[in-house]
Amino acid sequence: MSEQNCIFCKIVRGELPSNKVYEDGDVMAFHDIRPLAPVHLLVIPKLHVASLAECTDEHQTVLGKIMVLVPKLAKEHGLNDGFRTIINTGRVGGQEVYHLHVHILGGPSALGPMLRRD
Amino acid sequence: MSEQNCIFCKIVRGELPSNKVYEDGDVMAFHDIRPLAPVHLLVIPKLHVASLAECTDEHQTVLGKIMVLVPKLAKEHGLNDGFRTIINTGRVGGQEVYHLHVHILGGPSALGPMLRRD
Repeated sequence: MSEQNCIFCKIVRGELPSNKVYEDGDVMAFHDIRPLAPVHLLVIPKLHVASLAECTDEHQTVLGKIMVLVPKLAKEHGLNDGFRTIINTGRVGGQEVYHLHVHILGGPSALGPMLRRD
Repeated sequence: MSEQNCIFCKIVRGELPSNKVYEDGDVMAFHDIRPLAPVHLLVIPKLHVASLAECTDEHQTVLGKIMVLVPKLAKEHGLNDGFRTIINTGRVGGQEVYHLHVHILGGPSALGPMLRRD
């Protein structure tokens, strides 16, 4: 499923530009256009799914693929001392773009006050 | 692989108590003992892996399983308006327990100042 007006689907289709760092048949990754850390990447499934809340067993494979890609991309971008992986889901979760995306944040300023202890 | 002194391995083995919310052959979930939000769950693979940085293609299946479990658990705990999913990796990522764990945070106070826009 692809959504006509979804900005991430437009990026996947090449209708909007992105600073792409990875692409295969199922997954794409690019720099966040408004980075909140020295390294701020987004990893998305190419097939549209609004959020993690909409994911079911049929998404298990692509989610696993995304999650093993995350540390590879982190290392490729120099985040050898650590990074944070965040998925915001729904209104209370602070989600703005309703196409599932996994944030990778690295560098000292990636540490917000929340969850500093872990 | 199971680590003798890893506290999450001890929870998996039943040597330490936990407020368990889910368990199958590969995955376990329980309430964080020091919750940072009204709902704060941890989801872990039963087999020891230190962090997301140590995950390779062989972890794809269990990572996918964990990620489709996250929204199920969130809904079971009333987080229908959204939640945040966080994995802290390594020193810079603020990781404290070196057994991979996925945080599920829900409720208004789960929104830290970081990534409020998404």
